[in-house]
Amino acid sequence: MNKSSGILLGLLWVTMGSVMGQTTTQLPLVRYVKPIIGTERMGHTFPGATVPFGSVQLSPETDTIPYSVDGKYQPDVYKYCAGYQYDDHTIVGFAHTHFNGTGHSDLGDFLIMPTTGKLRLNPGTATDPDHGFRSRFSHQSEEASANYYRVDLQDYGIKAELTTTTRVGIHQYTFPASDSAHIILDMMYNIYNYPGKDIWTYVRVLNDSTVVGYRQTNGWAKNRTEYFALQFSKPFKSYGYKNYSTTEPYIGFWRRFNMSKNFPLIQGHDIRAYFNFNTTSGEKIELKMALSPVSYAGALANMQAEAPGWDFDQLKKAGQLAWEKQLEKVKIQTMSDSDKVNFYTAMYHSFINPTIYMDQDGRYKGLDQQVHNAKKDQFTNYTTFSLWDTHRALHPLFTILQPKRAGDMVKSMLKHFDQSIVHMLPVWSTYGNEGWCMTGYHAVSVLADAVAKNIGGFDAQKALTAAVTTATNPLYDNIPAYEKYGYIPDSMSGTSVSTTLEYAYDDWCIAQMAKKLGNQQIYQQFAKRAMNYKNVYDPSIGYMRPKNKAGEFRKKFDPLETSGEGFIEGNAWNYTLYVPHDPKGLISLLGGDKAFIKRLDALFTTYLPDKYFAHTEDITRDGLIGNYVHGNEPSHHIAYLYNWTSQPWKTQSTVRMILKSQYHNGPDGLGGNDDTGQMSAWYIFSSLGFYPVAPGSDLYNLGSPLVKSASIQLENGKTFTIEAVDQSPENVYVNKVELNGKKLEGKTISQTDITNGGKLTFYMSRKHGK
Amino acid sequence: MNKSSGILLGLLWVTMGSVMGQTTTQLPLVRYVKPIIGTERMGHTFPGATVPFGSVQLSPETDTIPYSVDGKYQPDVYKYCAGYQYDDHTIVGFAHTHFNGTGHSDLGDFLIMPTTGKLRLNPGTATDPDHGFRSRFSHQSEEASANYYRVDLQDYGIKAELTTTTRVGIHQYTFPASDSAHIILDMMYNIYNYPGKDIWTYVRVLNDSTVVGYRQTNGWAKNRTEYFALQFSKPFKSYGYKNYSTTEPYIGFWRRFNMSKNFPLIQGHDIRAYFNFNTTSGEKIELKMALSPVSYAGALANMQAEAPGWDFDQLKKAGQLAWEKQLEKVKIQTMSDSDKVNFYTAMYHSFINPTIYMDQDGRYKGLDQQVHNAKKDQFTNYTTFSLWDTHRALHPLFTILQPKRAGDMVKSMLKHFDQSIVHMLPVWSTYGNEGWCMTGYHAVSVLADAVAKNIGGFDAQKALTAAVTTATNPLYDNIPAYEKYGYIPDSMSGTSVSTTLEYAYDDWCIAQMAKKLGNQQIYQQFAKRAMNYKNVYDPSIGYMRPKNKAGEFRKKFDPLETSGEGFIEGNAWNYTLYVPHDPKGLISLLGGDKAFIKRLDALFTTYLPDKYFAHTEDITRDGLIGNYVHGNEPSHHIAYLYNWTSQPWKTQSTVRMILKSQYHNGPDGLGGNDDTGQMSAWYIFSSLGFYPVAPGSDLYNLGSPLVKSASIQLENGKTFTIEAVDQSPENVYVNKVELNGKKLEGKTISQTDITNGGKLTFYMSRKHGK
Repeated sequence: MNKSSGILLGLLWVTMGSVMGQTTTQLPLVRYVKPIIGTERMGHTFPGATVPFGSVQLSPETDTIPYSVDGKYQPDVYKYCAGYQYDDHTIVGFAHTHFNGTGHSDLGDFLIMPTTGKLRLNPGTATDPDHGFRSRFSHQSEEASANYYRVDLQDYGIKAELTTTTRVGIHQYTFPASDSAHIILDMMYNIYNYPGKDIWTYVRVLNDSTVVGYRQTNGWAKNRTEYFALQFSKPFKSYGYKNYSTTEPYIGFWRRFNMSKNFPLIQGHDIRAYFNFNTTSGEKIELKMALSPVSYAGALANMQAEAPGWDFDQLKKAGQLAWEKQLEKVKIQTMSDSDKVNFYTAMYHSFINPTIYMDQDGRYKGLDQQVHNAKKDQFTNYTTFSLWDTHRALHPLFTILQPKRAGDMVKSMLKHFDQSIVHMLPVWSTYGNEGWCMTGYHAVSVLADAVAKNIGGFDAQKALTAAVTTATNPLYDNIPAYEKYGYIPDSMSGTSVSTTLEYAYDDWCIAQMAKKLGNQQIYQQFAKRAMNYKNVYDPSIGYMRPKNKAGEFRKKFDPLETSGEGFIEGNAWNYTLYVPHDPKGLISLLGGDKAFIKRLDALFTTYLPDKYFAHTEDITRDGLIGNYVHGNEPSHHIAYLYNWTSQPWKTQSTVRMILKSQYHNGPDGLGGNDDTGQMSAWYIFSSLGFYPVAPGSDLYNLGSPLVKSASIQLENGKTFTIEAVDQSPENVYVNKVELNGKKLEGKTISQTDITNGGKLTFYMSRKHGK
Repeated sequence: MNKSSGILLGLLWVTMGSVMGQTTTQLPLVRYVKPIIGTERMGHTFPGATVPFGSVQLSPETDTIPYSVDGKYQPDVYKYCAGYQYDDHTIVGFAHTHFNGTGHSDLGDFLIMPTTGKLRLNPGTATDPDHGFRSRFSHQSEEASANYYRVDLQDYGIKAELTTTTRVGIHQYTFPASDSAHIILDMMYNIYNYPGKDIWTYVRVLNDSTVVGYRQTNGWAKNRTEYFALQFSKPFKSYGYKNYSTTEPYIGFWRRFNMSKNFPLIQGHDIRAYFNFNTTSGEKIELKMALSPVSYAGALANMQAEAPGWDFDQLKKAGQLAWEKQLEKVKIQTMSDSDKVNFYTAMYHSFINPTIYMDQDGRYKGLDQQVHNAKKDQFTNYTTFSLWDTHRALHPLFTILQPKRAGDMVKSMLKHFDQSIVHMLPVWSTYGNEGWCMTGYHAVSVLADAVAKNIGGFDAQKALTAAVTTATNPLYDNIPAYEKYGYIPDSMSGTSVSTTLEYAYDDWCIAQMAKKLGNQQIYQQFAKRAMNYKNVYDPSIGYMRPKNKAGEFRKKFDPLETSGEGFIEGNAWNYTLYVPHDPKGLISLLGGDKAFIKRLDALFTTYLPDKYFAHTEDITRDGLIGNYVHGNEPSHHIAYLYNWTSQPWKTQSTVRMILKSQYHNGPDGLGGNDDTGQMSAWYIFSSLGFYPVAPGSDLYNLGSPLVKSASIQLENGKTFTIEAVDQSPENVYVNKVELNGKKLEGKTISQTDITNGGKLTFYMSRKHGK
């Protein structure tokens, strides 16, 4: 690596030629970010450009394949969650909104595709790209780094480059000479592509280089409207569109216009528009696409504020500097560069979702479909809360690395609660919509964690009220039955056991919050509910098991099976260990220390036969370790449970084993969905040597660091340092831990230990201690 | 008539038993208003409740029949323009938005229907009402007066009463005893009912008596969203809905809710909701439905401002007083009560459209789909401009009776222009949408008329710019060809002749405006264009006639035929006389005085054979006088053209003949569409003895008054009085006219003559003068 002479805002830019074969000038930590990690198969990450927590995620789309089930047209809601699959060979265009690593899909707003030659307005198919506007591409020409993506569109000889600001996607297309160059604006493209998804599309051509509009969709988010303002660096010579909708109730006097060509108002259900240019060889055309949740006037204002001019490189660098600043929060020394790539890519993936969801002026559309102003309410509004996943480690990570944002996220959730007609905190919320995905009411975990850790910036009493209202909601997922029986009866839910277990943990969170806020009545009510996990444990077989209303356990039951046995994204083997708030109680329930250790050992070694694996969602075979499913979240705390046994060293070796086996530098580097950063947050915590087994408490459990050292720059100005003395690939065991030079007797550190600044020293060894 | 003792706000309420068989307490002039006039067949008026220019028109719907054309499902866009047809025997409910007297349809928002017994969510059919929620009714139980409608819903024993404020519809339902009373909120009901019209429906149940939401439709107005807030005077005991949409892309985790019953968020394409009650015998349940073009919060605020409590009678009276105040602007003495009914009903129908289209706080949704604030711009925003119809007499009438509103309407049109992406003044605009219905750019006539009459309240120079921009718009209806050829060539338009004629008149309006504003260049440009009418006149046959690009007239041509001969809503007979701005020139073109008189005489006497009548749109046979079509607007000025001949008395007799033959007191009292008040405005002007033949000038042409006397109370505080000395049914001729006691030599009076106040005296006679 040669240091370049370029110094921008005091940061060093370096010319790299080593990591993944790319030669480019990059920032010291940004150069370790490989957005391509997780883009192959199950990771569901996207390789495109974004700034930290940016509203725009501008990324290539390689396909969106609807398929047929029993003759009924179905979208592929799963494979193309991020729009991009590394194994594909064609690109259909570049869209501006994406989830990072989810297991269900939506978004993909406003696909842009540059082409030359005959105008084609259909995307074509992967097997027959020549009959559509899509283009072949090769990974050879591809570069994916933080806030920058480039690729050559081979069929057209166009070089495509992408970068972003928070609310603006910037495209730079280098064209060949052509008298028929086109830029297609495909308003029909959807991630999660289903007939009838497009409710309405509205486009206004303001002048020869500015276009505004919106699209309203009924997808995972049932009622989502995204507004845009699009500007071209060069005026188009002509434009037009095609409406693919088959129902158009009234045409009438509109017929007097030739609306398909150069007519500045375009609206309907299913629209693809195009803009024509003449280009010279090597001519660059830039596009800026600003988004807004409120109006196209808001989008225009966002563009004016963030990207008023035409300087692709400047905006690219500014965004990369923003990333560098985020990555610098944790400076690490590692045993290998590949660990650094994993680590900083995990940092990168952790800081994408939730995304900022408001205009520059603070206005956003709430869950109540009304326009609100976050600036007036003194917070930044965030959206895309995949809480079943992220309450475990991503939100706790924010409490350390992003406490200001963590407070704003809680405030965003409390606003969601205010706007919810069913009086619920978010479950899986995105873009002013609630999709209810997965189980539990884990927003309460995030709230309790923020209260426990004194994050501030929100009304804690209100948070408690919202949590209790949510947890006693008569409409939501069998809560009345749960309150009545102390568990959800088998007949009432397909996930009666896992939901009961999750409710019990969430209830413990509420109890902790109530305790801290001095509400004894709520504390006792929910501390009692937190013990409900015991109600679904069947001691006769040693597993959590579905139970009917009469209190009898289901007869036919297979603890290895994930599907149809009362659980979701986990079988009884894994979920029986899901009592993060009371490992001691669980160990006792499962027969004490030895039995429990045996159980944990078996989990990591029992081979899961194929017939069971087929029903294990969201992961590849590599995402399994024995029967432990790292690619799904319910087991994320399990490696740390050895800490409560007489063999805590097994936490250390297991964590190190998972870090090595589940995270790689390649496109297939994630064994399961990144789940908006939860998988990555697990990596960051575990690499640093500690993990939040039970968010809602202010404690982290110690594991075995992968780093040689780390220095965490806190927002309060203090620094928390981690050192692993005698670190090596073999020295996975921790024989002693010191906090500020003083030996730690327990297996935990607290949030205050971190936020006070100081040093945590791990003494590593090839052999385990006691 | 007995005067009652009730005196409210200084106005006398009288108990009536005479007019149309209704016994009720009514105001002195309001009692002459019979909203039922025009509800049978072609009038397309609605009988329901509204206040003057009210945003809400709450009226019964008797059906909306989709029919099949060549096996393709079609809406009946015509018959049910107002939702109600007098000859029907069932009512499907009461909706809150209607056009008055149009020839195309839309609206019908938010149908409410009270029922008892088994819940039925489909409307049923007229021939089989028992299988739907509709009810039989009889005109015996019906009362339709200004701002009040009542009817008995026979199938349920429910008495329904309706009244309104500007933005709120108030329902009062008197129920029988029932443990299964329902109030249905049908969000699928549409006037102009077409599959796919409902784009999206959103309903939130805020509490046990308040519901808010919106509906977005793609109808005549392609992209219209209307918001509502609904409040019940009594809490409902339960509620639910059914989604009739066949496409619902994502359900997923929504399945965990029983969304069909008591679930407070209802959304989808096609929704019918219901609310259940127990009722005692004679129990009244009141409903308030507030509308907003902006948001449901806006609708709630509108309700709070206009109808905060529960006093149906009070609001009814307040609205009727508002009507009385409007009607008092013209106090008349007539030869018969039936003339008074015609006159004040015409006043009523003239003051419905355009409607106020903004929230209490001034916010409204513009043509650009953005929210604007009219209060900040110091005007009241109006919508529903049926300008092809209304520029002729309705807008001129406003310049006399509603000058403040006339200025605001011009300002509303100029805002429309600002918001128009195609830079056009409104053509047929409604609810933030442009539908382009009919021909011409007649908004310029309204602007020119307002400038000519010094209406004020708007920027006249801007009006001129908007007019010129509109009239030279390269996108709109063959304007480039019109500019190139001086007429629209036959091959380019199905209405090449009538559009050329209308453009020529509109151009004259622009010329007048330019002249007054001192822009000589524009004056000359458009004064020249105004003579283009001559270019489509074929002297060889004596008719306006389609002409091709080479300047040759179409060979095969039938001047009696309305369809396919280059005209719209009029044949060559009528349209050849359509040069309102240059009767002198026209007379010369058509062969001079004698030939012209002969032509006019023939028009009113030539029987139009059935084969031609079949193609004469929008009127009944009674709407014809010979071949003169009063039910369609292009002939509205024709009776006054005798004034330019040597036999002006024929204007007098013809006008009186039309007044008597085309307007009656019954439900079928209008021979053609009221066209948002144009037919009614013609009646008012002609009854008073003068008419605006060429709006855009400040002159009115004298006819023969029907009233014995009239006193016009002007907004400037002055009074203009009309007296018809020796008035009688036979004395239709005017032998002398005096203005303020001084004999008028010409056949005109000016706007200033009126606005200065004073007296116009007609001396009536059985024999015509010179």
